[in-house]
Amino acid sequence: MDYSIFLRLINSNMIQNSVVRISCPDAKGLVHKITGVFYFNDLNVISNQEFVEPESLHFYMRSEMSGLVDREKIINGLKGILPKEADISLNIKRKKKIVILVTKEHHCVSELLIRNYFGELNAEILAIIGNHDGLKNLCSRFGVSFHYITADNISREQHEQMVISKISDYSPDFIVLAKYMRILTAGFVKHYPNKIINIHHSFLPAFIGANPYKQAYLRGVKIIGATAHFVNDDLDEGPIIKQDVLHVDHTHSWQEMAQAGRDVEKLVLAKALKLVFNDNVFVSGNKTVILE
Amino acid sequence: MDYSIFLRLINSNMIQNSVVRISCPDAKGLVHKITGVFYFNDLNVISNQEFVEPESLHFYMRSEMSGLVDREKIINGLKGILPKEADISLNIKRKKKIVILVTKEHHCVSELLIRNYFGELNAEILAIIGNHDGLKNLCSRFGVSFHYITADNISREQHEQMVISKISDYSPDFIVLAKYMRILTAGFVKHYPNKIINIHHSFLPAFIGANPYKQAYLRGVKIIGATAHFVNDDLDEGPIIKQDVLHVDHTHSWQEMAQAGRDVEKLVLAKALKLVFNDNVFVSGNKTVILE
Amino acid sequence: MDYSIFLRLINSNMIQNSVVRISCPDAKGLVHKITGVFYFNDLNVISNQEFVEPESLHFYMRSEMSGLVDREKIINGLKGILPKEADISLNIKRKKKIVILVTKEHHCVSELLIRNYFGELNAEILAIIGNHDGLKNLCSRFGVSFHYITADNISREQHEQMVISKISDYSPDFIVLAKYMRILTAGFVKHYPNKIINIHHSFLPAFIGANPYKQAYLRGVKIIGATAHFVNDDLDEGPIIKQDVLHVDHTHSWQEMAQAGRDVEKLVLAKALKLVFNDNVFVSGNKTVILE
Amino acid sequence: MDYSIFLRLINSNMIQNSVVRISCPDAKGLVHKITGVFYFNDLNVISNQEFVEPESLHFYMRSEMSGLVDREKIINGLKGILPKEADISLNIKRKKKIVILVTKEHHCVSELLIRNYFGELNAEILAIIGNHDGLKNLCSRFGVSFHYITADNISREQHEQMVISKISDYSPDFIVLAKYMRILTAGFVKHYPNKIINIHHSFLPAFIGANPYKQAYLRGVKIIGATAHFVNDDLDEGPIIKQDVLHVDHTHSWQEMAQAGRDVEKLVLAKALKLVFNDNVFVSGNKTVILE
Repeated sequence: MDYSIFLRLINSNMIQNSVVRISCPDAKGLVHKITGVFYFNDLNVISNQEFVEPESLHFYMRSEMSGLVDREKIINGLKGILPKEADISLNIKRKKKIVILVTKEHHCVSELLIRNYFGELNAEILAIIGNHDGLKNLCSRFGVSFHYITADNISREQHEQMVISKISDYSPDFIVLAKYMRILTAGFVKHYPNKIINIHHSFLPAFIGANPYKQAYLRGVKIIGATAHFVNDDLDEGPIIKQDVLHVDHTHSWQEMAQAGRDVEKLVLAKALKLVFNDNVFVSGNKTVILE
Repeated sequence: MDYSIFLRLINSNMIQNSVVRISCPDAKGLVHKITGVFYFNDLNVISNQEFVEPESLHFYMRSEMSGLVDREKIINGLKGILPKEADISLNIKRKKKIVILVTKEHHCVSELLIRNYFGELNAEILAIIGNHDGLKNLCSRFGVSFHYITADNISREQHEQMVISKISDYSPDFIVLAKYMRILTAGFVKHYPNKIINIHHSFLPAFIGANPYKQAYLRGVKIIGATAHFVNDDLDEGPIIKQDVLHVDHTHSWQEMAQAGRDVEKLVLAKALKLVFNDNVFVSGNKTVILE
Repeated sequence: MDYSIFLRLINSNMIQNSVVRISCPDAKGLVHKITGVFYFNDLNVISNQEFVEPESLHFYMRSEMSGLVDREKIINGLKGILPKEADISLNIKRKKKIVILVTKEHHCVSELLIRNYFGELNAEILAIIGNHDGLKNLCSRFGVSFHYITADNISREQHEQMVISKISDYSPDFIVLAKYMRILTAGFVKHYPNKIINIHHSFLPAFIGANPYKQAYLRGVKIIGATAHFVNDDLDEGPIIKQDVLHVDHTHSWQEMAQAGRDVEKLVLAKALKLVFNDNVFVSGNKTVILE
Repeated sequence: MDYSIFLRLINSNMIQNSVVRISCPDAKGLVHKITGVFYFNDLNVISNQEFVEPESLHFYMRSEMSGLVDREKIINGLKGILPKEADISLNIKRKKKIVILVTKEHHCVSELLIRNYFGELNAEILAIIGNHDGLKNLCSRFGVSFHYITADNISREQHEQMVISKISDYSPDFIVLAKYMRILTAGFVKHYPNKIINIHHSFLPAFIGANPYKQAYLRGVKIIGATAHFVNDDLDEGPIIKQDVLHVDHTHSWQEMAQAGRDVEKLVLAKALKLVFNDNVFVSGNKTVILE
């Protein structure tokens, strides 16, 4: 085998299997001009989706390409034809790195650990941090580091500082709140813009706050749900990535609603993460644009 | 044909195809005692459902029977074995009588008119009242009376008084708000306890109030819904009968959400009404118990 | 008002609000080249979707444009850059013209008549043909022509010939089988390639043939469904456009399954037609590609 | 603590938290008579469901009771009032014992192992048998015995005999086929009537046989599904317990359908098992009656 080609690849910034993401104000001919850059660089576009948000007239485009990519040349080519304020990224497709925060409930982190173990997560779980230690044994069964950081006897800020410090040891791409039952301060959230994904156990914006299943039971709803969203500001208020629901009836106690809801929660979180890890999700103000 | 049997039926208070509904505090042996009354009256029970609400320990039971029923004897038999505060009803199965209130949107009332026309509604539409007259032509095509009562230039109370007066001409069993876009006063609602069914164009309790689809769009939800409920108090707050949902994404403008939502609205309303008209729905505080 | 612009439009083949549909073998740079034709003709592309079928490597693209279009120039421009075998259409957006075939059941045709009446169908119902006359009264209420063509005492071919003859009076874009309970011959179907849309009352390919709800009941399924599809060959075998389902349980008789299924059938048909009438549906062998 | 009560319990056949299941030809007064046996034995009925299959006029009833139960007395009491051919069971509520058969795919067995580990399965996994050994490592992480019984170089009958022999070491209540990709002989199946539960990766009866996702892809369906069912006869033909579905479109390859379908499969299987393990499922010919 001739390794010189790989050396040339490294030397020339050329990479394989990449995703280009562009967002900018809309203008006439954008698709033509952008695909022109791809075409004249002899790229093989596998798939291509674009969307113009009608209210803001903002343009979003995601292109997936196979073959060798000269990163600098493409980026410069795109900069030459796009407005200055355009947000352009070109990334080789790779497994994202994540840290997961948990409390006591296992169902979401179990789902992620299993997918991670079988290589189906499109991410690598670097570590799991718990403010309780009940899930340590589960993590150890899968050989994943578990860090117990109790919040007892310290202030919220002190606890968050310890969590931030531990996260920084791993430099993850994303932080996943897999039923992490603590309210995060604005200070914590600002560290990780568009990088924290939470699963909320209700169909947001219904039942914001504590014990949504009990709230749902008391209101007598006939459907319960779960919501995966970015945490950028107040908890339960960020851009929604994925939602799903489940029919219930008068025979369900709120504990039974919670039990049934767990299956929805874990799948909604897993599906949202799949989209995020595959670079399908754009944040557009308080909403998401999902190009897949 | 020998008509004497019919005369005997009328004379003896005996009726066919009936539903017994019982609600009372729970006690040991209730099902045994109640079914005993049926058994010793030689009734053929087609179906039978019971439920005990765990929080209130309240017992609900619905029994459907074919064959001849001696109303007085059954009621007295049940009174003899049930607690004093028991709520007992025994009704022959029959089409309910309804009046529908509308504004401008047609989809819900169209659905009900079609079902009414083909005898599938398990109810008879006595009349339709609109605060706009745009749906008059549709109603006349089906030979259903339409009363236009404008709210222009009169107070809310005056308008409601006119509507109440018109409703009273028909003595309906139920009043259906088929996209009636006016807020009802507590005074109006009190006239018809557990008798007004509304369709709300959101997945309650999310997006209470005006223009829920626009609210949903602005919040960036990935699912929209509709809720049919009794109106007993504040609008949008009564016992929920039926809910259903629809997946949406970033490509939906709020107008497109509204358009797609209409199909959900009309079916949720139709299904809720089917349950109500079939005597399946018990109101239990702010919730419904549905025995079918 | 200056009418000369309209005359110029007519004279120069220029039209407004158009849809371009292209299908051809895939090749590098197709999107760039096609959008180039749009760009250099100064067209305002509202939306644009493309798809490459991985098995056949066939390319599909749908573009919607506002503004004035020089039909001949665009078509010629596209022909210049596309392979010879490319299938290209450029159509002004307009209401499609349809003829509906029915038998006895009303729910699907009722849904279409209501939508037609309120201008929500994106089509115009030219006429309804029934092999029974039970739905004549309904049609007359909406002022739609109803033609009763009985199949009694004549051969299948004779009957179809009469139906074809009546359809030809109207030259419709599409023929909708709204619970038309007769098997069509290959001869009939060949007259209208990709032009006949049927609603089948099962989740195809389960329960092909007669009385699918009874088949479903006897098999003890927990879900029933409906399928809207093109009829190109054998009934129940053409390209599927839309499917949806409904949960059932052991308490449903097959008649109750049929009753519950009607709501699914009528909405699946309505949604499939919306896609077809909006030029979103491409037929790709025995499958559909839906670009919306 | 006074242990004499436990000795008395054991001596007198009295047990706690029990489920009575009755099936027999329907007759007037059955509910009254059965609940009479409960009432005069001073039992506290928590919940009670009955159903009469309209075609066969067969009666099914499930009653759940708290408190001490004199097994012999209750059974004799019920025998005294029920027809001779009645099928009566009275069982203390307990975790069922299961053996799981697997091949290569992990998603279903992973789901069950996780639930088992956290005590949420209402069953105990005694052992897992694989005709491949790829899942051995996973099982060992959860401390569950894995037996590798290859089918290489032996006949189907020989292999089944080895599997039956291994199963008999554990005497399980149920055998779960968690993506066991081998066809079972009639001989094998007869050993375990109503005791084998399979998950089939299609919406049965569509796509019986090998590679249903590929079949679904080639047919161009817009919905795929999964079916959990008893295996009593031919594979894919037994009484259906639970089904669910997932929407797909033209962009899904059959491999992507398979991937997306796995989430549905594992939840459908888990939900079906919950019903079976909770004694909610009656087999009625080729159908199931589910009383919960």
